[in-house]
Amino acid sequence: MIKTSNSIQKLIDHFASLPSIGKKSAQRLVFHLLKKDEKYLKDFADSILEISKSVKLCNQCFNFTDDDPCNICSSNKRKSNIICVVEQASDVLVIEKTNEYYGKYHVLHGLINPIDGVTPDLLKIKELMSRLLNVDEVILALNPTIEGEITIQYLTKLIKPLEIKISRIARGVPIGSSLEFTDQATISNALESRIYI
Amino acid sequence: MIKTSNSIQKLIDHFASLPSIGKKSAQRLVFHLLKKDEKYLKDFADSILEISKSVKLCNQCFNFTDDDPCNICSSNKRKSNIICVVEQASDVLVIEKTNEYYGKYHVLHGLINPIDGVTPDLLKIKELMSRLLNVDEVILALNPTIEGEITIQYLTKLIKPLEIKISRIARGVPIGSSLEFTDQATISNALESRIYI
Repeated sequence: MIKTSNSIQKLIDHFASLPSIGKKSAQRLVFHLLKKDEKYLKDFADSILEISKSVKLCNQCFNFTDDDPCNICSSNKRKSNIICVVEQASDVLVIEKTNEYYGKYHVLHGLINPIDGVTPDLLKIKELMSRLLNVDEVILALNPTIEGEITIQYLTKLIKPLEIKISRIARGVPIGSSLEFTDQATISNALESRIYI
Repeated sequence: MIKTSNSIQKLIDHFASLPSIGKKSAQRLVFHLLKKDEKYLKDFADSILEISKSVKLCNQCFNFTDDDPCNICSSNKRKSNIICVVEQASDVLVIEKTNEYYGKYHVLHGLINPIDGVTPDLLKIKELMSRLLNVDEVILALNPTIEGEITIQYLTKLIKPLEIKISRIARGVPIGSSLEFTDQATISNALESRIYI
């Protein structure tokens, strides 16, 4: 087999390195791009470069953002006495899409996982604790997996003594699944029927 | 809903504009990229830019290539008296992977489609005809669709008078598949073109 173009093969390899994109899909995507004009490709490449340059972590909630603090943290339309704690930045997007939450967020960047060596100090937990001074409620919107449960238990133990309301979203999210793949209605529902603990 | 980052949203939109990538998948891909370092992202962006700059069409077979003529057209290990005609450049890759074809290729860049207004002059048919001087066989490796059949008929009519062998790839039940899940037209065809053993 002769490779007809190294630059095509290189781009196929790049796409195939992304999650859930196999070699065949990568090939299809690249041959799709080959039909596009130079401007489209430049725009695409630029916006990849852009995220490596302009996206940083918000100093308060640790969500990805172009501006620090992020739009949500700096918005006065969002209640600052309620914080929704999520595992990862993409979970913020998922919850925002329900249009039902008007508080702030805190992104942990992971869940406690003793087997993989993810201890609490590797997560943004210290940073969460330092934000709780004028906070009335913390919503734990973590995945209902073993790691999620461990993290919920750990955070509950830490926050409970501060006499702040703690809730977790209802286990309407199918157990074993993740927020990322859950439809908006289920997430709305799980937010509504959060259980105080 | 507040958008936390325009640059993230822009890249999500870019990925979502690709075939078979929905909004959710695009989002997952971008959040995957956000975990990568600057070098990885620069490499990815560069290789997108690269295809718009260094990839061109081979002047002989019209496959995508970095060098003109392409590696296959310029290779003296490939028989030049046999040409395999395909619809699109990605089909060359598919056939190359079989490691069973040692001739040259010709990419039509489409199939005749009167309904969509794709007339023969929009395809690389004139260019194919000009290559047939010292050619003994033309293999038509086109999809067994209506457009494929029309194109096969058209090409056969053009090439037949030149007394060149013309063949088309066999239509039949795919290997690994079963009769049960094969459509009737394919089975009829497989029956008709049965091979005596």
